[in-house]
Amino acid sequence: MKFRTDLAIENKEIYDKENQEEKIEIKGVEVETDHYEGAVDITRIKITDEHGSKILSKPIGNYITLEIDSAVDGSEEIKEKAAMALSLELKRLIKFHSQLKVLIIGLGNDKVTPDSLGPYTVAKVKVTRHYFLMYDTDSDNEISCVSGFIPGVMGSTGMETADLIQSAARIAKPELIIAIDSLAARNVDRISTTIQISDTGIAPGAGTGNMRKQLNESTLGIKVIAIGVPTVIDTKTLILDNLSGFLSDPDGAEAYLDDNGYQMIVTATDIDQVIKDFSDIIANGINITLHPGIYS
Amino acid sequence: MKFRTDLAIENKEIYDKENQEEKIEIKGVEVETDHYEGAVDITRIKITDEHGSKILSKPIGNYITLEIDSAVDGSEEIKEKAAMALSLELKRLIKFHSQLKVLIIGLGNDKVTPDSLGPYTVAKVKVTRHYFLMYDTDSDNEISCVSGFIPGVMGSTGMETADLIQSAARIAKPELIIAIDSLAARNVDRISTTIQISDTGIAPGAGTGNMRKQLNESTLGIKVIAIGVPTVIDTKTLILDNLSGFLSDPDGAEAYLDDNGYQMIVTATDIDQVIKDFSDIIANGINITLHPGIYS
Amino acid sequence: MKFRTDLAIENKEIYDKENQEEKIEIKGVEVETDHYEGAVDITRIKITDEHGSKILSKPIGNYITLEIDSAVDGSEEIKEKAAMALSLELKRLIKFHSQLKVLIIGLGNDKVTPDSLGPYTVAKVKVTRHYFLMYDTDSDNEISCVSGFIPGVMGSTGMETADLIQSAARIAKPELIIAIDSLAARNVDRISTTIQISDTGIAPGAGTGNMRKQLNESTLGIKVIAIGVPTVIDTKTLILDNLSGFLSDPDGAEAYLDDNGYQMIVTATDIDQVIKDFSDIIANGINITLHPGIYS
Amino acid sequence: MKFRTDLAIENKEIYDKENQEEKIEIKGVEVETDHYEGAVDITRIKITDEHGSKILSKPIGNYITLEIDSAVDGSEEIKEKAAMALSLELKRLIKFHSQLKVLIIGLGNDKVTPDSLGPYTVAKVKVTRHYFLMYDTDSDNEISCVSGFIPGVMGSTGMETADLIQSAARIAKPELIIAIDSLAARNVDRISTTIQISDTGIAPGAGTGNMRKQLNESTLGIKVIAIGVPTVIDTKTLILDNLSGFLSDPDGAEAYLDDNGYQMIVTATDIDQVIKDFSDIIANGINITLHPGIYS
Repeated sequence: MKFRTDLAIENKEIYDKENQEEKIEIKGVEVETDHYEGAVDITRIKITDEHGSKILSKPIGNYITLEIDSAVDGSEEIKEKAAMALSLELKRLIKFHSQLKVLIIGLGNDKVTPDSLGPYTVAKVKVTRHYFLMYDTDSDNEISCVSGFIPGVMGSTGMETADLIQSAARIAKPELIIAIDSLAARNVDRISTTIQISDTGIAPGAGTGNMRKQLNESTLGIKVIAIGVPTVIDTKTLILDNLSGFLSDPDGAEAYLDDNGYQMIVTATDIDQVIKDFSDIIANGINITLHPGIYS
Repeated sequence: MKFRTDLAIENKEIYDKENQEEKIEIKGVEVETDHYEGAVDITRIKITDEHGSKILSKPIGNYITLEIDSAVDGSEEIKEKAAMALSLELKRLIKFHSQLKVLIIGLGNDKVTPDSLGPYTVAKVKVTRHYFLMYDTDSDNEISCVSGFIPGVMGSTGMETADLIQSAARIAKPELIIAIDSLAARNVDRISTTIQISDTGIAPGAGTGNMRKQLNESTLGIKVIAIGVPTVIDTKTLILDNLSGFLSDPDGAEAYLDDNGYQMIVTATDIDQVIKDFSDIIANGINITLHPGIYS
Repeated sequence: MKFRTDLAIENKEIYDKENQEEKIEIKGVEVETDHYEGAVDITRIKITDEHGSKILSKPIGNYITLEIDSAVDGSEEIKEKAAMALSLELKRLIKFHSQLKVLIIGLGNDKVTPDSLGPYTVAKVKVTRHYFLMYDTDSDNEISCVSGFIPGVMGSTGMETADLIQSAARIAKPELIIAIDSLAARNVDRISTTIQISDTGIAPGAGTGNMRKQLNESTLGIKVIAIGVPTVIDTKTLILDNLSGFLSDPDGAEAYLDDNGYQMIVTATDIDQVIKDFSDIIANGINITLHPGIYS
Repeated sequence: MKFRTDLAIENKEIYDKENQEEKIEIKGVEVETDHYEGAVDITRIKITDEHGSKILSKPIGNYITLEIDSAVDGSEEIKEKAAMALSLELKRLIKFHSQLKVLIIGLGNDKVTPDSLGPYTVAKVKVTRHYFLMYDTDSDNEISCVSGFIPGVMGSTGMETADLIQSAARIAKPELIIAIDSLAARNVDRISTTIQISDTGIAPGAGTGNMRKQLNESTLGIKVIAIGVPTVIDTKTLILDNLSGFLSDPDGAEAYLDDNGYQMIVTATDIDQVIKDFSDIIANGINITLHPGIYS
């Protein structure tokens, strides 16, 4: 893949484009689209075998994309519809039962705005595990037993983020981990419109270029759902992508950039508001899903 | 003790006052005062036996108080002198050697200003452990191997803070833990002037009234130094203390307050600046102490 | 008045208490209570003559107090009911018409949390005047022509706040000024429960003890409505008030405090959340009142 | 000019490049370079006539660029050298005398990080005018009479920023205005390295594409010095600039982008730290220049 992106839907778009067809069938890739209340477009990509995995450069599993128009600085109504749609999609991957033990992880660095989605979201999720520790709780209550953890980044802790997460998991003993993280996209517009849900695990710190441990169901023995929002764009991606219809020799252009160009990562100028609005939407979507007895 | 305070020096002051003497000798308590460059007054209280411990309501160990005039919103020069003085006192308790393994813990809640001293300070400490993990490092370099950890509070994580700290200690394997926390004092003036260093361990969450696990050398097998700054005042303490020379029946007044009065905890109105300035001073003092090859 | 408070309702309470009666009639003071949807208690105090003004130590005019249970960190529902109640009370003092010209002033210092209610609230109010400047606007639209201004405090600007407000008024030419400010109360509980609306004008910087210019209908020729929330407590007030039933000689206690005690002003430890929640409520209440075409 | 930039030095670089020469002489443009203590490169561009003004697309006047290596997250020492260099350059444009009346304006939006340089800097400048108002001041003291003003942006105030600034100038009656603002650059690297000082005035809101009033010596009768730091990059600029050596038909590429491409503005991912560090440097440089009796 020429383009750096964390979004399965962008890999699919690139593949479609390179193959000159609107929407091509790929063996090992199932695609389904949906729509929620005139506000949210949903694309469910399921990679079912190694062939599909290789074509889309992503592990086997589910990748659900929500595209929301005008979420940033938009009305509370749009944000509530987005949270409802997110909750409906989460319920496809999560089997809720009363007292479900969930550990919510907020990846990233709360001091760097484009990397702060995870910490901000976890701060807004309803954490309940300590009530279960401290009081007798009515098991009929439709709430989950939720812990929250903000591990920080290696540059601030000096420790492997994956190790810290595993430690928290040993304390909270969750049946399910939900990790929230900032992502990279190739299309700047996605910064203020897109949420991706996947069930293939996480590799904390991958965005910083450090090789990192994979955290997923096979390494942890616990299902790991990742929820991400694109917050950064690689400038090489940005450049090649914007001129893709113009350049006669894109490979030459890329080689030229590699030799002469920047490898800077950039972000949107309204990133403060993006983080505020999307952390609201994601925390809400999680609260509705895990605590139906309180939030619905 | 009638008065709620986390400061050994205030317990000593109360004892002195109740006993009608300026500075009284207590068996099992050694007191020494010092002064640093016209800017910082230092009082070193050493509790040496059970008798001293009972009299001052504190565990056996060292309690060093730094009193700094005009630290808040003051000149950079005052803050640098305070950091130097803090470093000199830390060196009485810490035996530095190259690559000393230290874990810095920031206790408290970064979303509640008067409880955010720990998280803010850790964010300003120079963390280095990942360099040692990633590169061959010159063992002659006068720097420590420092990790940082911000465990959050139980209401936000759902997990026991002490459990999270023990997990981090298992990862970082430190020879020394330094924990930074907000404290309660009886005297409002102390909020913008006082730092206490002690070597008797910590009980995370103690300030919230929850019973908590003690973390100290005997429970962890690792020396634990606590650095704290008073940021809150109990109103009962404030009331009784301010009228102490006026009330003929202080016990009756206290009983009255217990029946009728508030038990609110209050803070100074300039608490934002207090946290900013004292986190600068403490982080600087730690950096100078642990990384002499970089900071001095 | 022995007690420092900016709340008319507290002056009334003190008067009642001193006169040993539950609710006493005062010549020149009309009091009316009301209740909004099980969530907000309303007390409307109208001072109608000089006698009432002298008794309650407040200028002639209207003082409406809203008391909200569990507003801080409470449910969105409570906050919406509080905003609705605030809007209903504002409508008693404001005659809305389409394109009503309003200048919203956020008094206080955004860098000092307990003094930041005004700036935070103005940032959440829907400002519209520039649309009227830039586009032809449909005069049938039920929205006001709203400007917003955050003048800062004299210590940060070097200028009289009243002068800056008058300048902004000369630009925006409003029919009505609404000023939001932090207040002092005698009762700590009021910090997280009370909103006061008054129509007697403002004296910017009065809280800092500096003599300041009055801004009201007679000095400006524009109606001035002030909306305030108590965020600070004077410790003298706190002390005397809490022991009021115990002290046999309250005047002696006060004299003792004046000679020996602190004059510190303190705030609640959850002040960050108080500012967040009350700025939401007040901005919402203003938006509903001034822009019925958008918000209801 | 094909490239959008607020930096005179970039216009000069583009002109040089287009004319195939390293450093070309332009009639009406004087260029001088300098260096400060191994840390700051200085380029002084003086546009002396209409010809120079047309060639560089900038009004007649002085444009001083400071380039600082490793200012962001760098040592305090580098930041102090940068502040000293900035002060030396300011002194070329400002004739200090005791009680010099200066109004410091912080342009931009404090809620949008890449636009918040102005507000953050003004908050760190030593404002003194109120001391002169309140006390008899010793006229021999080497300090200026400084006011500070943060006018906000039209979208938040509903008022023309230029009108608000003129009002503040009528109150403070300054001999000199210094305005701090965020700038656009073509080169991403400049976001963390460059400060521009100019004496040709400001046009508040120009960055938002709205036509705005010019504030300069001829419209105000007061000398206006602007200090700016690039914080945003136009993506079109970024794209064309990075491929400038590769594209055989840059005009065609530009036309293609205009038809198909984005016009998004992006910022650096470490923008929070950029704003923090450069507001420190600029505020310090101003304080040293205007208050030699306190800061040197």
